This record gives sequence, structure tokens and C-alpha cells, in this order.
Amino acid sequence: MADETPDPAFRYEVSGADAAGVRRIVEATDFFTPAEVDVAVELVEERLARGDASGYHFVLADEDGRTVGYACYGPIACTVGSYDLFWIAVDPAVQGRGCGRRLLVEAEWLIARAGGRHIYIETSNRPQYVPTRGFYTACGYELAAVLPDFYNTGDDKVIYRKRLDVQPQPGE
Amino acid sequence: MADETPDPAFRYEVSGADAAGVRRIVEATDFFTPAEVDVAVELVEERLARGDASGYHFVLADEDGRTVGYACYGPIACTVGSYDLFWIAVDPAVQGRGCGRRLLVEAEWLIARAGGRHIYIETSNRPQYVPTRGFYTACGYELAAVLPDFYNTGDDKVIYRKRLDVQPQPGE
Repeated sequence: MADETPDPAFRYEVSGADAAGVRRIVEATDFFTPAEVDVAVELVEERLARGDASGYHFVLADEDGRTVGYACYGPIACTVGSYDLFWIAVDPAVQGRGCGRRLLVEAEWLIARAGGRHIYIETSNRPQYVPTRGFYTACGYELAAVLPDFYNTGDDKVIYRKRLDVQPQPGE
Repeated sequence: MADETPDPAFRYEVSGADAAGVRRIVEATDFFTPAEVDVAVELVEERLARGDASGYHFVLADEDGRTVGYACYGPIACTVGSYDLFWIAVDPAVQGRGCGRRLLVEAEWLIARAGGRHIYIETSNRPQYVPTRGFYTACGYELAAVLPDFYNTGDDKVIYRKRLDVQPQPGE
């Protein structure tokens, strides 16, 4: 990229302070319900308590000593090489500068290196998530399934997938 | 039913002995990998350790003082009324007498009473699971999604769903 914005620095282990940092980022997006925010924080706490056995892996992006975004992913039990991307969130103060995409590409690289074949992302089809879904599509994810009324009446679940075991087409 | 087989007695709380009982039943079906058997037992242990907070609820069927089958279900986080049926297994020694269907109907009743709208069941489309999928279809579940190569290359995930918030059609 041509701009002068420094790339955020990635790190891969959460510390006790990240529970508050993740809560701050996820709340700042204004996208998630209080219950969803609690789940995001619980995954940090699970990682802290149980390490790799938690099944939750993190990529955190720090900029000027402050965490500005993170992704959380993990292998899906009883599969060979299928992974969930559980969360990806970027502080609105730094959005639009590619941090989310860098986080996702970094997570994909780590998943591929660990033997991942597929990455799944679940989200809602509510209008609020149009930019979210556009982001996943732009990053090479394809719509794999729709489960009508899954989250609530009128609120479908959509499942996106990226295959790491096939060659990307030109232009992807 | 016209036969003289006694109905199994249901219970809803697991005890320490059920970890071994669930392992025995799940292994006896000869359907599951060792990793899957471990997951089945872990859900019992989670229930024992954390109660309702585990998110795992059980229906166990006892016959002549022996547990012969069980179902494990739970609410899906961040949804209003969507539930997963995680496990349903019946000792092969008593299969074919309706125990599985009774367990499933009992779990559905409990889910509906707790405000459930949808029940989801995930399974494999491998030929081994033809009877399993036939069982779900016969019990009113519809195929909601297929995720190719999800479990492994050539081993798709299929997602079945039953809506509890719509009137069943005649004949269902």
C-alpha cells in the first residue's frame, strides 16, 4: 500500500488485559448484543485458562501500544482441517485502512500452516451486516449455506466458506 | 405400540456413572471415532461440572436398571430459540424398538417447553449414516444445508432442521 500508515503489529498470545481490550473493540463496533460481547470476552478467558486446549486461537493487532483489532479462530472438533473463524473485529477508529483484511489473511495463513482445508464464517443476513458480508466476499469467501430464521424470526444465519485446498481462480 | 416391551424410564440429570454409560453406548453403536466418543463423554463431564451453564441438557433412557440410550441437546448461544441436538444414541441391544424415537420426541418436548423454535442436527452424508438420516427424516426433520467435504475430503456435513414454530402438515 502507498499510504504512510504503519502496519499494525501482530501478536498471537492473549494476556489478562486482552479481555478488556476485546470487550472495548467489540463494543465500539456497535454491532453486537451484550450477550455476543460476553461470548467474545469468554473466548479470551477460555484461551487464558486452557491454552491450545481451549480450541481458540488469536491474532491481535497492536498499533501505538493499543490493540486495535483481533481475529479468533479454531479447529472444528471431529473434522480433518475445517476451521471456524469465530470473531474478527476492528476498532472503528482505524477501520478502512485494511486492518481487518490483514488480520484475516494472517489467520488464514496460520490455519493453512496448521493443515486447514476450509475456513467457515457464520454471520447474520440482517441489513446491518451487508458490509460484513461484502468484506468476506471480497476476501474470497463464498456463500455455502443459508439457515432461515436461525438467529431469530426474520434473522437468517449465512455460512461463508473459503477452501484452502483448491487453487484460487485468476482475479481472486 | 402393541408389543409387551416396557417403555424405558427417562431421567434428566446425569450422574458420575453416566460418563461410563454414555461411553459404553456410543462405543457399542460402532458408529463413532475415538475422538467422537471422547467428545460425547466430555459433554457429560461438562454437564456434571457446570450444570445448566454447560449448555448441555440430557435425556437418558433406563431399562431394567441399565442406561440403554440418551439424547443430549442445548440452546445455541446468541440465538432466540434455536437448539442443537448434539447426540442421540441407543444401545444396539435394544435398537429397533422405538427407544431412539421416544428419546427424540422427549427432547423435542423439552425444547419446545423451553421456548425452542428450531432444532438442528448435524451429521455426515457418508453411506454409513443412511439409516441415521432416514431416522431424522422419518421424525420430521428436513435437510437444511449441505457443506461439501466439511468433515474430510469426501465427507460432507448435512444439517437437518425441525421447525417447532410451524404447524406440521397432515401425515407428519
